Amino acid sequence: MSGPIRLALIGMGKIAHDQHVPAIAGEPAIALAATVSRNGEGVEGVPHFHDIADLIASGQGIDAVALCTPPQVRRAIAMQAIQAGWHVFLEKPPGATLAEVANLESAAQSAGVTLFASWHSRYAPGVEPARAALADARIDRVTVTWREDIRVWHPGQAWILDAGGFGVFDPGINALSIVTRILPRPFFVTEAELDYPENRDSPIAARIAFTDDAGLSIAADFDFRQQGPQSWDIVIETDRGTLTLHDGGARLILPDGSSPTTAAALHGEYAGLYRRFAELVRAGQSDVDIAPLRHVADAFLRGKRNVVDAFIE
Amino acid sequence: MSGPIRLALIGMGKIAHDQHVPAIAGEPAIALAATVSRNGEGVEGVPHFHDIADLIASGQGIDAVALCTPPQVRRAIAMQAIQAGWHVFLEKPPGATLAEVANLESAAQSAGVTLFASWHSRYAPGVEPARAALADARIDRVTVTWREDIRVWHPGQAWILDAGGFGVFDPGINALSIVTRILPRPFFVTEAELDYPENRDSPIAARIAFTDDAGLSIAADFDFRQQGPQSWDIVIETDRGTLTLHDGGARLILPDGSSPTTAAALHGEYAGLYRRFAELVRAGQSDVDIAPLRHVADAFLRGKRNVVDAFIE
Repeated sequence: MSGPIRLALIGMGKIAHDQHVPAIAGEPAIALAATVSRNGEGVEGVPHFHDIADLIASGQGIDAVALCTPPQVRRAIAMQAIQAGWHVFLEKPPGATLAEVANLESAAQSAGVTLFASWHSRYAPGVEPARAALADARIDRVTVTWREDIRVWHPGQAWILDAGGFGVFDPGINALSIVTRILPRPFFVTEAELDYPENRDSPIAARIAFTDDAGLSIAADFDFRQQGPQSWDIVIETDRGTLTLHDGGARLILPDGSSPTTAAALHGEYAGLYRRFAELVRAGQSDVDIAPLRHVADAFLRGKRNVVDAFIE
Repeated sequence: MSGPIRLALIGMGKIAHDQHVPAIAGEPAIALAATVSRNGEGVEGVPHFHDIADLIASGQGIDAVALCTPPQVRRAIAMQAIQAGWHVFLEKPPGATLAEVANLESAAQSAGVTLFASWHSRYAPGVEPARAALADARIDRVTVTWREDIRVWHPGQAWILDAGGFGVFDPGINALSIVTRILPRPFFVTEAELDYPENRDSPIAARIAFTDDAGLSIAADFDFRQQGPQSWDIVIETDRGTLTLHDGGARLILPDGSSPTTAAALHGEYAGLYRRFAELVRAGQSDVDIAPLRHVADAFLRGKRNVVDAFIE
C-alpha cells in the first residue's frame, strides 16, 4: 500500500464526530475517504453512504473501516468489511459478545486483514508511566472509582441502557482497559453487584471485587448517576506508597508525589489509537485484547442483581 | 509415570458419588488415592482429607486431582493443586469466570501439568456420530430444548441458584457443550432472556437466540421447572432432513430414520472423560475448550432479565 490508508468511518454518532474525525485529520498515515451512517451526519467534502452495502457497491477506494456503531450491530458490519478485504478498527467494546469477537478475529486472520480492538483509555498519558512504575512493585490494594453523569456524556444514547448496551460498563470498561494494562498480573472477578433501573435492561451502577493469585484486593465502583464533580480515578497502594491515576488516566501522581505526565494533547487518546492502527496495518498484524470485555462478561455472569429506581433521561 | 495415575477426588457431593467414583473404578489407568471434602462422605478404604491443604501436608502420593466442588470455589483449589505439581480435571463448568479459567490454563502450562476442562455431555454416544453426519450438511435451523426438574436433579444444591451458580445454565451448558461440538461453524448469542426467581440470584429459565456467519438460527430453551417428562433434545434441520439427539445426546436419529447409537454403557460419559484425562496426562497435554462457558457469559452479558415467581425447594 502506498499513500495514506483510505478509511471509511461507520456510525456517525457523538464519538465519531467528537474524537474520530479530528484524530484522523491529525494522522498523516490515514485519510478519511468516506462516512457511513443511517441517521448521523457526514463530514463536508467526504463521500457519504447510507450503509456498508452501499459503500461496497459504490466501488469507492477503501482500505480500512473504523466502526463507531453501538456494539449490538457491530459484528455484522465488521464481517462485511473483512469479507470486502478491508482492515477493521473497532471502537470499544469490540463486540456485544465474546464469541463474536473471537469469530471476527479468526475471520480477519483468514482474510489477511488487520483487526484492531481499540481501548482508547490505554492511550491516556498517565497509563504507560503507571505501568512502568508498577512493573516491579508489591501491590497491596487497588480502588477504582468511575462515576459519571450519563445525561452529560451520553445524551440521547438510549441503547446504552438496553440489553447488550453494557450500561455503566460502557464507561467502566475504560477503567478495566487501564487496570488490565498497568497491573503486572492477571486478576479475576470474585463478586459483583449490578443495579438495574426498573425500566431498563442494563445496569446503571455496579460494584465489582476482583482478586489475583497473590490475593490482591481490587474494588471497582462504577456509577452512571453521578452529578456534580465526576470521578475517573484509580488508586493503587504499593510497598512504595500510593500511585494515583486521575481524570481517566490523564493525570498520574507517583508515590513520591511527582507527576511525570504533561497535559494531554487535544484528542490525544484517539491520536494514539490511529497511530497504532496505522502501524498494525503496515505491519500486517492484528491486536485483539479481549481482557477488559471478558471481565465485564464475568461480572454479569457472577453478579448479583438489584433493581433500583427507574431512570428517565 | 509408571502404574496408574493416583487421583484425589475433591468435593464429595452428588456428582462425585454418582459418576466419578464408579467411572474411576472402571478405568485401569487411574486409581482413586484420596478423597477430599469438608462435608461430603468419603469412599470406604480410601484415605479422606478435610481440604486440599491437609492433603498436601499429608505427603500422600498424588499425581492428579478431579474437582467436583461448586464453581465458585474451584479456582483457588485448582491453583493449589497446580502449584503442588498435580494434573487437574475440572468438572463443568471449569470455573465461575472466564478470566480465572484463562489464568489456570497459563498456570498449568507454566507448571508443566495437564489441565482438562471436562464437558461430560460431549461423551454421550450420539455426539460424535452427529458431528460426523453434520460435517458437510447445509444446516437450516437448530432447536435446543433442555427442560428438567431442579428438585429431582439437584436436591439440596442451593448454590446452583446463588450468584455465580449458573442457575439453569448448569444443565444448559451441557447442551451448549454438545452444540459447540457438533456444529461445523462457530456461532454467537444475538438475544437472550433470563428469568430470575424473585428470591434467587441466578436464572431458573432462559431463552437464547444464536446465529452464525451463514445466518443460521439456533434457538435454545432452558427451564429448570419442568415436571413430568424431562426434555434434553437437540433438533437439527438440514438439507437432507432432520437429525435429532434425544436424552442429552444418548440417542441419535439420523435424517434417514436410522439410529446408529447403542444404549449408553452405565456411567458411559464419565468413563469417556476419565479415559480422555488419562490420555492427556500421558501425552503431557491440556484440553481447555471454553466455548460453552463463553456462550453462557455472553448470554448473561446480552440478556434481558425478567423477575419470576419465587423458587422454594
